[in-house]
Amino acid sequence: MPTEASPPRLTRALSGIQPTGRFHWGNYFGAIRQYIDLQPGAHQAADEAYYFIADLHALTTVRDPPVLRGFVRDAALDLVALGLDPDRALLFVQSDVPEVTQLAWLLMTVTPMGLLERCHAYKDKKTRGLPADAGLFTYPVLMAADILAYDATVVPVGEDQVQHIEVCRDLAGTFNHLYGDVFTLPCPRLVEGGAKVPGTDGQKMSKSYQNTIEVFEEPAALKKKIMRITTDSRPVDEPKEPADDHLFQLFALFADAADREAMADLYRRGGFGYGEVKQRLLAEAGRFFAEAQARRAGLAADPERIEAILAAGAARARAKAGAVLARASRACGLDHGPPPVTGR
Amino acid sequence: MPTEASPPRLTRALSGIQPTGRFHWGNYFGAIRQYIDLQPGAHQAADEAYYFIADLHALTTVRDPPVLRGFVRDAALDLVALGLDPDRALLFVQSDVPEVTQLAWLLMTVTPMGLLERCHAYKDKKTRGLPADAGLFTYPVLMAADILAYDATVVPVGEDQVQHIEVCRDLAGTFNHLYGDVFTLPCPRLVEGGAKVPGTDGQKMSKSYQNTIEVFEEPAALKKKIMRITTDSRPVDEPKEPADDHLFQLFALFADAADREAMADLYRRGGFGYGEVKQRLLAEAGRFFAEAQARRAGLAADPERIEAILAAGAARARAKAGAVLARASRACGLDHGPPPVTGR
Repeated sequence: MPTEASPPRLTRALSGIQPTGRFHWGNYFGAIRQYIDLQPGAHQAADEAYYFIADLHALTTVRDPPVLRGFVRDAALDLVALGLDPDRALLFVQSDVPEVTQLAWLLMTVTPMGLLERCHAYKDKKTRGLPADAGLFTYPVLMAADILAYDATVVPVGEDQVQHIEVCRDLAGTFNHLYGDVFTLPCPRLVEGGAKVPGTDGQKMSKSYQNTIEVFEEPAALKKKIMRITTDSRPVDEPKEPADDHLFQLFALFADAADREAMADLYRRGGFGYGEVKQRLLAEAGRFFAEAQARRAGLAADPERIEAILAAGAARARAKAGAVLARASRACGLDHGPPPVTGR
Repeated sequence: MPTEASPPRLTRALSGIQPTGRFHWGNYFGAIRQYIDLQPGAHQAADEAYYFIADLHALTTVRDPPVLRGFVRDAALDLVALGLDPDRALLFVQSDVPEVTQLAWLLMTVTPMGLLERCHAYKDKKTRGLPADAGLFTYPVLMAADILAYDATVVPVGEDQVQHIEVCRDLAGTFNHLYGDVFTLPCPRLVEGGAKVPGTDGQKMSKSYQNTIEVFEEPAALKKKIMRITTDSRPVDEPKEPADDHLFQLFALFADAADREAMADLYRRGGFGYGEVKQRLLAEAGRFFAEAQARRAGLAADPERIEAILAAGAARARAKAGAVLARASRACGLDHGPPPVTGR
């Protein structure tokens, strides 16, 4: 698949973040940091960046309203605390832009069933004999609308989401073929260094393994979780290969190059206790997130500020999505009003 | 299925009309007349009546934008000409109420795949080995949203749509069970005397048989179509059973009781030519639709008037749908704003 063929002049990056729990280190180092790095002014910057909290998608799994409400607000606070700058990028909640679901219906009418039947999430569930709902099945259509509504050109994704971007391009292509040049085809951008954050037990860090350490962990809880990171029982004196050790891998996420090298040397020499490494990890992680922690505390103390950020983001997102929806509606004949002004 | 168990105090009727072609006699006598009879002040009146032109549904079959645009405007003109009174009922275009597609997504997340797989339209297509698209598959979910968005209590339907009302009740029930008392469960009301309009060839009148006579046919075209109604070659003198004859059945749609009886007697006596009956049918049909014809011509000459009617209808429909969507969004936790005002 061409990922960067004939790049458009203006790059507009888009990321949807599912509010299905608090962010853990795996989320942060695997995706969120890279997303935020796309905002204008950052080092991998796009010209524009749209970030949305995907509450309509979360609804397919989170069936507890106060919990969902909390996840959405926490996601907003966390993202801004972690560096998403509302002056440089849009932050909004998916359901605040109703144009997206209308667009999803337009796309639904050009979506072959076979395309959705082949998508991972649904197929996996079906293969395991589990009952699926239509929300899971049609998820890729809503995701396509999420992207196309804003003429996004770049969508940073993990490996598992590449298929959904292909679906999005497929649907946009079919619609354009039927109705003219309406949608901008987005390019996926594979998030690099994504899948390598181990959990406290050494497996991949993931909520489903209950081995996560959250970004905004309380100090006492953070200490407890770090102290419980599993280690092996080789003698203290024995030299160890740092690359194979998940405690070292976690430390490496936070340490600068010099500290990381020093720690690697210590591993290879032997003669150290894992408890010592854990103390260093605790200190480094605390230092790493200290600024975000402080920023988050300030934001949390002023609920109206985050609402204002989300409202401003939604207003700007709606203006864009409204224009795209009008373009799509005109193209397929849904406008019954006076003759439209032409042009995009 | 209980159709009228514990009737709600306020009845709100809702009908969606697909703009997939011009209305023919079968549409009018089979459905539209009965729909219009539900508007306040009519003889089977509901307390409120909502009529919408289902352009989002039509999009699954009409892929030609100017054609769709024409069908939508014609449907609006035809309905008002045929007696739908915008002062007593709402008339609007489905896509002008974006709240409906947002609601459709909320419902999608509680729709089991099995429920949709069992629905006629999709099942028939699949059985015949034809490729289906997700628009056809999820059609019943959008239809449920169409109904639930307005707290409709009564939905007049033909036999073939009863299943979809059951799906709507199912989804509303599931959502209410999960999230509290959000949706009003609608009751289907079977349209009576529906399926009995024969086409010019004696089969059921239907676009797919190309045997239709349109309500607003031009006089010359009307005459031509009526003169081509198939008849048998029995001798003029032979007595005939009127009930078995589709020409008589068509005549009976327009004639008053006395004329109908007189014509039936003539059939039973024999000694008449079918050409004579066709002339009478032409005259009666012309008379029957004369007022509507005149009203339509007046409306068509003033395009801004029909746009104003649709805009006013959409504004009132959106106010209602917005309230229902807010209620549903709050219930499932999509509202992230300040605490909502309670109550419906």
